[in-house]
Amino acid sequence: MDKDPFRHRFIVRLHDTDAAGRLFFGHLFRHIQDALESFMDHLGWPIHEMVRAGGSLLPVVHAEADYKRPLYHGERIAIEVWVEEIRHRSFALGYRCVKEGGEEAATARTVHVWVAASGETEPSLPAALQEALASRLRAGR
Amino acid sequence: MDKDPFRHRFIVRLHDTDAAGRLFFGHLFRHIQDALESFMDHLGWPIHEMVRAGGSLLPVVHAEADYKRPLYHGERIAIEVWVEEIRHRSFALGYRCVKEGGEEAATARTVHVWVAASGETEPSLPAALQEALASRLRAGR
Amino acid sequence: MDKDPFRHRFIVRLHDTDAAGRLFFGHLFRHIQDALESFMDHLGWPIHEMVRAGGSLLPVVHAEADYKRPLYHGERIAIEVWVEEIRHRSFALGYRCVKEGGEEAATARTVHVWVAASGETEPSLPAALQEALASRLRAGR
Amino acid sequence: MDKDPFRHRFIVRLHDTDAAGRLFFGHLFRHIQDALESFMDHLGWPIHEMVRAGGSLLPVVHAEADYKRPLYHGERIAIEVWVEEIRHRSFALGYRCVKEGGEEAATARTVHVWVAASGETEPSLPAALQEALASRLRAGR
Repeated sequence: MDKDPFRHRFIVRLHDTDAAGRLFFGHLFRHIQDALESFMDHLGWPIHEMVRAGGSLLPVVHAEADYKRPLYHGERIAIEVWVEEIRHRSFALGYRCVKEGGEEAATARTVHVWVAASGETEPSLPAALQEALASRLRAGR
Repeated sequence: MDKDPFRHRFIVRLHDTDAAGRLFFGHLFRHIQDALESFMDHLGWPIHEMVRAGGSLLPVVHAEADYKRPLYHGERIAIEVWVEEIRHRSFALGYRCVKEGGEEAATARTVHVWVAASGETEPSLPAALQEALASRLRAGR
Repeated sequence: MDKDPFRHRFIVRLHDTDAAGRLFFGHLFRHIQDALESFMDHLGWPIHEMVRAGGSLLPVVHAEADYKRPLYHGERIAIEVWVEEIRHRSFALGYRCVKEGGEEAATARTVHVWVAASGETEPSLPAALQEALASRLRAGR
Repeated sequence: MDKDPFRHRFIVRLHDTDAAGRLFFGHLFRHIQDALESFMDHLGWPIHEMVRAGGSLLPVVHAEADYKRPLYHGERIAIEVWVEEIRHRSFALGYRCVKEGGEEAATARTVHVWVAASGETEPSLPAALQEALASRLRAGR
């Protein structure tokens, strides 16, 4: 892929860490959500507008992360975000958390389904959203 | 006061603690909310029913806590909850976090206002809610 | 499997939910950790004692969850916990979040590696821990 | 005061909100901590270095917030931070959360005590820290 990946940055703060002295694994998903919302803002599909409009939602149906190196209090982290897969009614995003020195600390993946707020799965992702996502599709890593 | 205080119990888990080895101060408010919801369930005014019905809400307009002793991973804590004050359109709850050995680790206070979900402050707390709260009013500590 | 699964219970509270009206996916991992710590307490290997002793840790190297039904404010949830796999230096736990009516709302999995607090992977899980885990091993679901 | 206040910015994300459609009051303290750490970084006294060095800590002994307007998903918020009071062994910081249109959404206050990591209160704040704080002291608001 020739394009620069989309990047969301954060600093590990005290509430992210735990008594073992590292980022608590579950808190990473909050930063993943921040990265996801920044990415969708950037694509022109802000999550908060969908939630507010209330017609359609993109709930997470699967989330996973692999933790490769501990993240410590005060470290500056960049989360790269890209589209891993686009299907009829769902898509998957990929994430890579990188330390300032370039070391990969964690990777993650979320899968989102397009549903009506009523709970029904909608027939398919809107064409304009498919196109926006396709512009950030990255062939297998 | 002759009645036993209402108590909500929890164990300090890894995500509650931080790299300084203690409960992160902000995470206490999550447990305070758990205690508050258990207390309101007990009074017959479950918060989730009010939020779901959507007519009236009890948003927190003030919250505070004093931290007296560090809370450590694995400690068993009881939060005592009582009503500190009842006013026309608002009320205040008091909280005391006590370790198993009886040491006071923290105290807290939340103030709730009765508002219509539309955002308007309602004229006054329903009489039945005032009564329920009054049964748990504790004169100054 | 003939044994009753280990169960950790919680109630979905306001801080667990989000503006879309459901449990925020990332907050589930906090409850997963609560279930995990209760389970390890029950096996006689409390996580907080390992963290406090500081010699060995069991960091999460992989975490994942599948979300099948929305979890709503006020719902009572039981998390079943079991051991999915035991390897030389790591093990995997499985989780199933069940609503009161018996509907499965989510499943999850965490993988833990036995490391020295210094960061080095230790040669293998202590035999006593392997035995404790083996007592809760559940053949494929 | 003639100096521009120190500002930390954030966007309200889905995990900040709750089923009532607003920022959950307790989650504000996470953002307050982010603002506090940015402020201390700026003063040359990064919290993570103190925690890591392990000699001295600045635990929060009091925290409070007043909530004046709901904060909604997607809103861009600036938190102004200043020093409210400097005492022998403690100091207080003040915070003001302002929406893009300039409306004040919340105010907050944290009080920090200078303690040895051993738990003993230290005789007094280091002179250099007192000076750094004094440069950001703001007379009553």
